[in-house]
Amino acid sequence: MSPSAITPEGGSEASVSLREVGEFRVIDRITTDRVQPDTTLLGPGDDSAVVAAPDGRVVACTDVLVEGVHFRLDWSTPEQVGRKAAAANMADVAAMGAVPTSLLVGLACPSETPAKQLEELADGLWAEASSAGAGLVGGDLTSGPVMVVSVTALGSLQGREPVLRSGARPGDRVAVCGRLGWSAAGLAVLGRGFRSPAELVNAHRVPVPPYAAGPAAAAAGATSMIDVSDGLLADLAHVARASAVAVRLRSRAFTVPARLAEIGSALGLDPLRWLLTGGEDHALVATFPPDTALPADWAEVGTVEPADSAGPEVTVDGRPYDGDAGWIHFAKY
Amino acid sequence: MSPSAITPEGGSEASVSLREVGEFRVIDRITTDRVQPDTTLLGPGDDSAVVAAPDGRVVACTDVLVEGVHFRLDWSTPEQVGRKAAAANMADVAAMGAVPTSLLVGLACPSETPAKQLEELADGLWAEASSAGAGLVGGDLTSGPVMVVSVTALGSLQGREPVLRSGARPGDRVAVCGRLGWSAAGLAVLGRGFRSPAELVNAHRVPVPPYAAGPAAAAAGATSMIDVSDGLLADLAHVARASAVAVRLRSRAFTVPARLAEIGSALGLDPLRWLLTGGEDHALVATFPPDTALPADWAEVGTVEPADSAGPEVTVDGRPYDGDAGWIHFAKY
Repeated sequence: MSPSAITPEGGSEASVSLREVGEFRVIDRITTDRVQPDTTLLGPGDDSAVVAAPDGRVVACTDVLVEGVHFRLDWSTPEQVGRKAAAANMADVAAMGAVPTSLLVGLACPSETPAKQLEELADGLWAEASSAGAGLVGGDLTSGPVMVVSVTALGSLQGREPVLRSGARPGDRVAVCGRLGWSAAGLAVLGRGFRSPAELVNAHRVPVPPYAAGPAAAAAGATSMIDVSDGLLADLAHVARASAVAVRLRSRAFTVPARLAEIGSALGLDPLRWLLTGGEDHALVATFPPDTALPADWAEVGTVEPADSAGPEVTVDGRPYDGDAGWIHFAKY
Repeated sequence: MSPSAITPEGGSEASVSLREVGEFRVIDRITTDRVQPDTTLLGPGDDSAVVAAPDGRVVACTDVLVEGVHFRLDWSTPEQVGRKAAAANMADVAAMGAVPTSLLVGLACPSETPAKQLEELADGLWAEASSAGAGLVGGDLTSGPVMVVSVTALGSLQGREPVLRSGARPGDRVAVCGRLGWSAAGLAVLGRGFRSPAELVNAHRVPVPPYAAGPAAAAAGATSMIDVSDGLLADLAHVARASAVAVRLRSRAFTVPARLAEIGSALGLDPLRWLLTGGEDHALVATFPPDTALPADWAEVGTVEPADSAGPEVTVDGRPYDGDAGWIHFAKY
């Protein structure tokens, strides 16, 4: 069907709403002519999808993005929101040491939403999924007061054991892979009404998780792993608690990127705080046994020590970090 | 931790909100002390869950329920909403001929929502999941303007091929299993301000899908199957279109339950319309080869014939049914 076939009399294609086009036709437009990976045994269009789980197990996680809480449609395009929603979930799959295979998307939005916006959102979901070798295999579309994008990602462990938060041991090295602080710096820029530097603003709009680094860390023998969604210190506190250990970071091990240093200076903010507490970049942080060579692109930033029941779980240069420890939800609603 | 430990000074347990308790503590309370089925290899608490997929494939589907669109918290308890959300998804798994193994739940709700409501919602999800042998393995909780419950269900085909919508062949028998029209009748009652008959109102609040009938139909050789979420005629139209056949129903094959006849008479409505067009009971409808014995509890209601390109895809007593053909979304937003 040509797009014009579903444009009502007098309406321009760009402004046709979900209500005018109808749920089923929008789903048709979102799902037609997409190329599924080999793991998609049955794609969208039936009651359920069927996905390959070659080693007899499937990794699964869900993440919800709400308009006004996690994204703003005046700051991000629908395509960027789609990429971000897919990335947040696939990073959780990578953090188990698994490879993403597929996404399912539950989407609620006002019925006045232009159908074109939903196609762009789907384009973003597909682009990000494809970049990690995954496909969008199913979902649901319904009306609601604001846009809510709930993504479930599935993945394959390829025969390996999952890397849990609870496996860190005293003596392990702590290492990170991927960007830290870029999204938080971009948010600080946007929050002050600026639209540049583009690199930072785009980093907030669309994270770039190092998907392949998760399976690589698992193969190298990582003892624990988590993706940095709430902030490095906050997420390492989850690891420390689950593993009953203490994590000791060294601030000198972190290199502040020039872009972040510049904009920190311009805004009068310490850029290290973005690296340590900024969320939503979806870097990976893992622990490795002391005698293990780190995989490519992983940088050592600290060590694991025995838990000190009286002391803090995560320290920077021997002290609790004096700043916000991560992203707290429920600011708006 | 005892519940009183997280009750702020002066607040009663029932009224403590999500904002006061905090996302992580609510998740703790929702996930602690639940009994997972054997298929849950790793439950909630890490970046992702790990679920068994014994035959190397996983069935997956997502369904979204929005407050004010799919449920009202003055008509249903949170526990009933949880059951309904789980049921709608697990019925989609059963409609492939698969057995549900696990659920993931993306939940957005106002931060003023009492934490107790979220526990009750989780109780409902768990109760329904357990009734089908599945477990709640993961999810996400965040704030939003109304309650949005996005559930993903996973399932196992136990080595069988999935039963698609596209497999119906001329000569097949059409059969249904499970309740038809009960939810629609219950909604009609509620919409007129009544709270009884309880059987009907509860049928709207919590469907009772015949989960085991899906795998049984697959094992018996069903050629196509779908769950009745939008209404029997609307859902059979999906089967007819996907299979390129016509579906001919016989109204005399349907037995109108006494409860529906009574309330139809009281409201001046034809109860057969509820059976044919009412959604949300999540009965299963399938087609079987002519020489196949129907499994227990399946009732024959029509036959599959070659498609008539000029004629309607689904008829009742040889004619298109003169009534609403199912549930259309986007009424409110």
